[in-house]
Amino acid sequence: MQAGIIGLGNMGQPIARNLLKAGHEITAYNRTRSRADALAADGARAAETIAEACAPGIVLTMLSDDHALAECAFGQQAILDSLPAGGLHVSLSTISVKLSQHLTAKHAERGQHYIAAPVFGRPQAAESAQLVVVAAGSEESVNRARPLLEAIGRKLFVLGTEPSMANALKLSGNFVIASMLEALSESFALARKHGIRAAQALEILSALFQSPVYENYCRIIAEERFEPAGFKMTLGLKDVRLVLAAADTAGMPMPFASVIHDQLMTGVARGLGEIDWSAVARVVAENAGLKSDAGHSHSTQSKPRTR
Amino acid sequence: MQAGIIGLGNMGQPIARNLLKAGHEITAYNRTRSRADALAADGARAAETIAEACAPGIVLTMLSDDHALAECAFGQQAILDSLPAGGLHVSLSTISVKLSQHLTAKHAERGQHYIAAPVFGRPQAAESAQLVVVAAGSEESVNRARPLLEAIGRKLFVLGTEPSMANALKLSGNFVIASMLEALSESFALARKHGIRAAQALEILSALFQSPVYENYCRIIAEERFEPAGFKMTLGLKDVRLVLAAADTAGMPMPFASVIHDQLMTGVARGLGEIDWSAVARVVAENAGLKSDAGHSHSTQSKPRTR
Amino acid sequence: MQAGIIGLGNMGQPIARNLLKAGHEITAYNRTRSRADALAADGARAAETIAEACAPGIVLTMLSDDHALAECAFGQQAILDSLPAGGLHVSLSTISVKLSQHLTAKHAERGQHYIAAPVFGRPQAAESAQLVVVAAGSEESVNRARPLLEAIGRKLFVLGTEPSMANALKLSGNFVIASMLEALSESFALARKHGIRAAQALEILSALFQSPVYENYCRIIAEERFEPAGFKMTLGLKDVRLVLAAADTAGMPMPFASVIHDQLMTGVARGLGEIDWSAVARVVAENAGLKSDAGHSHSTQSKPRTR
Amino acid sequence: MQAGIIGLGNMGQPIARNLLKAGHEITAYNRTRSRADALAADGARAAETIAEACAPGIVLTMLSDDHALAECAFGQQAILDSLPAGGLHVSLSTISVKLSQHLTAKHAERGQHYIAAPVFGRPQAAESAQLVVVAAGSEESVNRARPLLEAIGRKLFVLGTEPSMANALKLSGNFVIASMLEALSESFALARKHGIRAAQALEILSALFQSPVYENYCRIIAEERFEPAGFKMTLGLKDVRLVLAAADTAGMPMPFASVIHDQLMTGVARGLGEIDWSAVARVVAENAGLKSDAGHSHSTQSKPRTR
Repeated sequence: MQAGIIGLGNMGQPIARNLLKAGHEITAYNRTRSRADALAADGARAAETIAEACAPGIVLTMLSDDHALAECAFGQQAILDSLPAGGLHVSLSTISVKLSQHLTAKHAERGQHYIAAPVFGRPQAAESAQLVVVAAGSEESVNRARPLLEAIGRKLFVLGTEPSMANALKLSGNFVIASMLEALSESFALARKHGIRAAQALEILSALFQSPVYENYCRIIAEERFEPAGFKMTLGLKDVRLVLAAADTAGMPMPFASVIHDQLMTGVARGLGEIDWSAVARVVAENAGLKSDAGHSHSTQSKPRTR
Repeated sequence: MQAGIIGLGNMGQPIARNLLKAGHEITAYNRTRSRADALAADGARAAETIAEACAPGIVLTMLSDDHALAECAFGQQAILDSLPAGGLHVSLSTISVKLSQHLTAKHAERGQHYIAAPVFGRPQAAESAQLVVVAAGSEESVNRARPLLEAIGRKLFVLGTEPSMANALKLSGNFVIASMLEALSESFALARKHGIRAAQALEILSALFQSPVYENYCRIIAEERFEPAGFKMTLGLKDVRLVLAAADTAGMPMPFASVIHDQLMTGVARGLGEIDWSAVARVVAENAGLKSDAGHSHSTQSKPRTR
Repeated sequence: MQAGIIGLGNMGQPIARNLLKAGHEITAYNRTRSRADALAADGARAAETIAEACAPGIVLTMLSDDHALAECAFGQQAILDSLPAGGLHVSLSTISVKLSQHLTAKHAERGQHYIAAPVFGRPQAAESAQLVVVAAGSEESVNRARPLLEAIGRKLFVLGTEPSMANALKLSGNFVIASMLEALSESFALARKHGIRAAQALEILSALFQSPVYENYCRIIAEERFEPAGFKMTLGLKDVRLVLAAADTAGMPMPFASVIHDQLMTGVARGLGEIDWSAVARVVAENAGLKSDAGHSHSTQSKPRTR
Repeated sequence: MQAGIIGLGNMGQPIARNLLKAGHEITAYNRTRSRADALAADGARAAETIAEACAPGIVLTMLSDDHALAECAFGQQAILDSLPAGGLHVSLSTISVKLSQHLTAKHAERGQHYIAAPVFGRPQAAESAQLVVVAAGSEESVNRARPLLEAIGRKLFVLGTEPSMANALKLSGNFVIASMLEALSESFALARKHGIRAAQALEILSALFQSPVYENYCRIIAEERFEPAGFKMTLGLKDVRLVLAAADTAGMPMPFASVIHDQLMTGVARGLGEIDWSAVARVVAENAGLKSDAGHSHSTQSKPRTR
């Protein structure tokens, strides 16, 4: 299958690579050309312009935020201008419900199709094609994109015919993950205040939830491995803003989301914006009067005293 | 091995039964005698008094709160009076850090031993011996209780020599579970506000976390199965109070715990105290202006439109 | 002095009347014509179009939100199109920092002047010319508008040359008032839970703060006089959204603002949107499991048992 | 009138002095004797023991917290032991509702009387006899204490016959003041983020509320005069704990109180416990990424650019 992809960041790049691995013919565009060239080694065609990436008639976008996607979609010689009638835009980005609704309308005006298919997973999951993909849009369009979406994740969910539903679900899920981070951060701080080593708390909480997501984030927090960032705190803050915006438009309070927003905002104001968003644990620890425990937790981790 | 057990509620009863199954000789005491008699059919000896349950020299307690345990421990002809010197009290209850420290001191004054071994898991997990047990206390005492603790759970963690550490860890864990409930509640409400059926959100969030704990609670919330209560909201509120008390003594803010406290308190004030604490989802839904979705989610659940 | 005014709601109407009383010649425009006609009896000239209201070269706007003002300013035959070069737009509305900055730039492009002069006070204060006015903009423009601004309030503050500073200050102030409402609401509920009558709490808190603002709002809350609305809850929610937006852009957390947002949102979701925003007290009381105390507090208020 | 007073801290000392000024004969006791001696110069009799202070048959207590008062009341040769039958204990301290109820019962058992009469006001207000006093207890006892209570404040309110009502009201009031501090702190930070000088925000907010309480605290926050402490942050935190405890027992959520608790706790954890509780403004400013503005606001304050 032939398809274009726009946006080759730390999520877009491995996604494109998995599309190639699955045998698809991919035309890749990135604002900074070098990232498209890097993919050429894997068999991609590096596009000079957005128009070239749209030429196959189906184009995936994986951009960092509303602003970046709007620029690629609505500008001159951008996606709306470039995609042929009957063409399909598959948006993988985590964007606002509002922008997704706007794109739905604008593509329809031009006789083009649009579906939202945001993905769950960090760059590592993207590399190993282990993303969870949530798609929404017309059944026909979803089926058309299906071979691509199945190539990049371990699971594909289809929600309904309104594309923005997938964005709302994606935001709901990211919110649950962000809540888990804050909860773990407070929990680890409470445990440490009572003399429990982070490595012990990590082991018990992992056993309790039996979830790879918990295991991964418990480990990051316990070992304070916030660098390199898998997902930057500024991006996490952006997502929580989208969550609050969606809740506000929908007319409902989300007290946890408000707390997380404030903790991430504090983290960014204190200079943690570029490290992993799980570093909200550092904000929590500082507010608890705790110093970094990283050295200690590493050294003792080798022989936890458990059955 | 011979042992007594005091407290045969919806956790204590199945725990006692699993001790019997594992071949231990159990003397069981409950304030309401009928519950002890019920166990006699499974081979337990029904005790008339606390003293009888303490006679084997090792006694487990599984009571609902600080007050109930203090009454059984410090009253006349209670545990401290009844346990022989060198005897061991194993407290399985979720109690405050402070009471656990107090029990440690009081037992020591009498030449008795005390360990804390609180358990994670709902009644169902207790029945199938799938509890996660977290013990703390002197190595000798923990080893003495080990055959009993291994008979009631799927995993035993040993934290350190200070019993109250196990209570702190248990509270930290319960706090993370309570946070999960509030996060899921807000997440489901946000999804529903965007036209997503609860059954769809359930399936996707379960796939995302791949955790039996998430799967279980997502299902309860999605299907609004808050009755019969596995863990009553009043008990959940009690635990969050203990969390906040531990944090306050330790000198740290816990903003999430404060929010959960307020949500559970609102639930209890609105008359939900006797149903499952996951009914915090009902508080959240009402604050979002949502009506019950239970009927709908059941009927559509049979054929979710996903891969 | 000659001036136009656009927007004759429950704030704009009394403001226009006070301008007339002070001897100014006022041309008044309102989308619903009847409100302009009502002012004609007081000596105003009722305008048919926005352009007529802009003809005097200085125009005041008092509109309900960003959307309404943007429509009057940027549309066809709107303020930007109608105001002569050198003309002055004085925005009295509570709007976002962002829109104010946008208006500053757009007016400057056309050689027009713009200042922000938002006002503090409820309709009653507007009627008695007791508003507190906070202006910001070029010294020359502020001085030009001074005779008008002094006619409508008891106090005029001038902040600086950047118009949006006045909007930020206005939002800061509204936020403090909203915080007072939530604090009073929780305080009254706590008192009532301890058997203290609302009328007693009212008297003591009023004596404590010795502030007419406290006295007014304490009375409204104690007597549950949420209708007719002096300031609707939906408008209060709008303002808190602007506060959170300003904070977010400025890069700071505002935990109180988040709580107020959630409480007002809950109120609106529960159908209180059209009554006074002090009815946040009803949300708080309901969450505390309290029934309305209005009847009781009225009846006992006549003879409070105090010195 | 003859009376004893126990507790001569920065509130008790000026209160005792005003009692002397009003012509009462005062026997003063303080754990650290030197403070009682200091009062002797003003005409007080310095007591060696609690019993001596109780000898006049009516004794006022002004102690820092539940613990200190309980020690003076319930210990050996303490107030309960020392006060004659028919004697009256007037508790001016800010203590828990629960301790007040306990004291009511214990004094009654011995045929003694007890009323609660907590006071509003900082040390300065105590010195100038400008406190607001809120009393509750039997009408007879309140009337008996009236000459003393009128000598120390500008206003006396009598609530009802249950002493603990006065404590609940005092906590409600302190909560509103604490809320004001947090609201002002966030408001000033938001204003400063938009380039508004603290001195300007101070002037406008003072004009808005026309309250001496606002004026005082706005000034402290604007000028960052957190030392010497009028009321230490650790004491403020103590009071908010009492508020939350009262709310919890009463069965109601107080979301603002939870936020304030967390902010004060963070302040104490960051080492601000011994300075004024209005330094919560420093916690807020730091979380907003703001540096101290004290120097600037002082220098510009001399010539505010306002009408």
